[in-house]
Amino acid sequence: MTRTGRQMRSTIREDGTLTLSLEEVAVGDPGDDEVIVRVEAAPLNPSDIGLLLGPADVSTLVETGGAGTPSLTLTVPEARLPGIRGRLGQSLPVGNEGAGTMVAAGREARALEGRRVGMFGGAMYADYRRIRAQDVMPLPDGASAMDGASMFVNPLTALGFVETARREGHKAIVHTAAASNLGQMLQKICLADGIPLVNIVRSPAQAGILLAIGATHVLDSTEPGFADRLADAIEATGATIAFDATGGGTLGSDILQAMERVALRGMTAYSRYGSDVFKQLYVYGSLAAGPTMLDRAGFGSQWSVSGWLLFPFLRKAGPDIEARLRRRVADELTTTFASHYTRVIGLAEALKPDVLRAYERKATGEKFLIDPTRG
Amino acid sequence: MTRTGRQMRSTIREDGTLTLSLEEVAVGDPGDDEVIVRVEAAPLNPSDIGLLLGPADVSTLVETGGAGTPSLTLTVPEARLPGIRGRLGQSLPVGNEGAGTMVAAGREARALEGRRVGMFGGAMYADYRRIRAQDVMPLPDGASAMDGASMFVNPLTALGFVETARREGHKAIVHTAAASNLGQMLQKICLADGIPLVNIVRSPAQAGILLAIGATHVLDSTEPGFADRLADAIEATGATIAFDATGGGTLGSDILQAMERVALRGMTAYSRYGSDVFKQLYVYGSLAAGPTMLDRAGFGSQWSVSGWLLFPFLRKAGPDIEARLRRRVADELTTTFASHYTRVIGLAEALKPDVLRAYERKATGEKFLIDPTRG
Repeated sequence: MTRTGRQMRSTIREDGTLTLSLEEVAVGDPGDDEVIVRVEAAPLNPSDIGLLLGPADVSTLVETGGAGTPSLTLTVPEARLPGIRGRLGQSLPVGNEGAGTMVAAGREARALEGRRVGMFGGAMYADYRRIRAQDVMPLPDGASAMDGASMFVNPLTALGFVETARREGHKAIVHTAAASNLGQMLQKICLADGIPLVNIVRSPAQAGILLAIGATHVLDSTEPGFADRLADAIEATGATIAFDATGGGTLGSDILQAMERVALRGMTAYSRYGSDVFKQLYVYGSLAAGPTMLDRAGFGSQWSVSGWLLFPFLRKAGPDIEARLRRRVADELTTTFASHYTRVIGLAEALKPDVLRAYERKATGEKFLIDPTRG
Repeated sequence: MTRTGRQMRSTIREDGTLTLSLEEVAVGDPGDDEVIVRVEAAPLNPSDIGLLLGPADVSTLVETGGAGTPSLTLTVPEARLPGIRGRLGQSLPVGNEGAGTMVAAGREARALEGRRVGMFGGAMYADYRRIRAQDVMPLPDGASAMDGASMFVNPLTALGFVETARREGHKAIVHTAAASNLGQMLQKICLADGIPLVNIVRSPAQAGILLAIGATHVLDSTEPGFADRLADAIEATGATIAFDATGGGTLGSDILQAMERVALRGMTAYSRYGSDVFKQLYVYGSLAAGPTMLDRAGFGSQWSVSGWLLFPFLRKAGPDIEARLRRRVADELTTTFASHYTRVIGLAEALKPDVLRAYERKATGEKFLIDPTRG
């Protein structure tokens, strides 16, 4: 018997036409060190949406599939094609991580058979995933697939921020879009580890989420007096590193300026080169469109703005540190690393225009989960 | 006898009024480890102009001094005052570096008496400079004060770029505003040391300056097809680090995008995270006004944009490396590190409105030298 199942695919043609579809694919038999998992939960992270939709213009969305074979078409503006030349013409599976139940196992992976596991490695928006046993993690007893669906990207990213801050000698952290699932995890880690965290959000509701889990410093960037309150929070905590999910606009620049303002308060003599305090901004997301605008006039001379992504971080950190971080995630899966979803959808549902438009907005506090067993 | 002399001062009051003046100050007797140098040449570097004029609006310039006591007044827009709060109300001497003849020496510095020296440490726009003996460098026989006037900032910066590139594992360099005195030094060092250099200029005349000293890669950013030619030069050299004097605008972003484009050419499989190649942009100047605009969409995930300044670099590099770099400057003072000036002015002349407007433009290829002995 050949097992087959649906798999979500994203393809961009040379002319900029992006097609989303569900393909019926053969799962294949597991190799000796492989397992087959029935996918029961897979989150829609911003990075997944990035691969799914590329730089397409969502206003061009049209439904092109028939009944039972959902398919959507969007257009990528020509100016954005050079940046994605490498994927043109390729039918790409989507979905970084997920969880489900093991339904078959190769010779060397029998011990895991029947277990519920979390897993990581792409192509998770599918009925089944054939995967190497070393890329799955058995869930603790009693944990649901939903509990294990997001046990890699957000948890390891939040832990990676703290690890990065420590390794680079910073004693407190600033975080933006801080009420996200990731932001809540970061706040819990910082509370447990005694690292002061300055949370920046954009609404009272978001502030409430963080205050409820014990946050001390929560600033709403839409309120008057934000710049002064940010500087005060930075002074109170000693934060010299920031992780920014927004990317576009001036928020990152505002944070570096606030850090420098605080550093200058501590100086006795004027130096036209600014303070000696090194300030690091890591950009790890693009929630805000447009270029990053750096008003360097207020930075002093000791600053750096860099990209931060999980995979390069883990590669640099090495397998020992990755193993330590993964153990912590497993140990605290339903506490520190609990994720919250506002909507659970089926695979076919994810390709309905109104549903796609809803998760594409990436609103903080909203999070979608795909459960392929729902159809 | 008390020796006195003129000293140029820049003062910004709390209300944003900037005053430039020449003060008659007592030079004082040299301490045991000090010397007194009659200043005969001091360059107007962009960093000097930055201290002299602060963030003042040059269009507000008015002459306020009487005959024999030149004085100018400018206004700093209120929005720019927070960034310079530390200097408000202070009368600051100006001029990072210079050269001249030693006219007095303390007990421990007699060996230098009568020698012509280069020196570094501020307050050089003056008739005399009292300074620690360790902060002066005797000039080679036959070298003029003009030869020694710029033996610190530009030479050590150019050497610092190469040192930074090597220490951070880059094998070729991109440089902007590359026809400057600094840029010419960098090209000569790179030729001598076998490091490929991609020069970016803004006119055929500037390109000519670099080609005449042996540059291979000279690109005019105002010409059509610049982006493609930049990528080709980056591919030919393998450059993954850039030093940018312009700061404002998109040029730095364009360079990072070109580096990533080249890195992607070498990849066989598509990755939404871009290439594995780490790309570093250092911003060391602000020749172009406005914020640095980073279009991260084309950067991949491995990039960093940082401030670069000589003094923090030297502090991090340590005294051994600084001594090695200084020795090279002394050895190659009239060859690799020869500076060219387009105009020599007196101290009082530097405070004439039309002269100030001319050096404030910081046009590449134009360079002013102050010789206080001219009056």
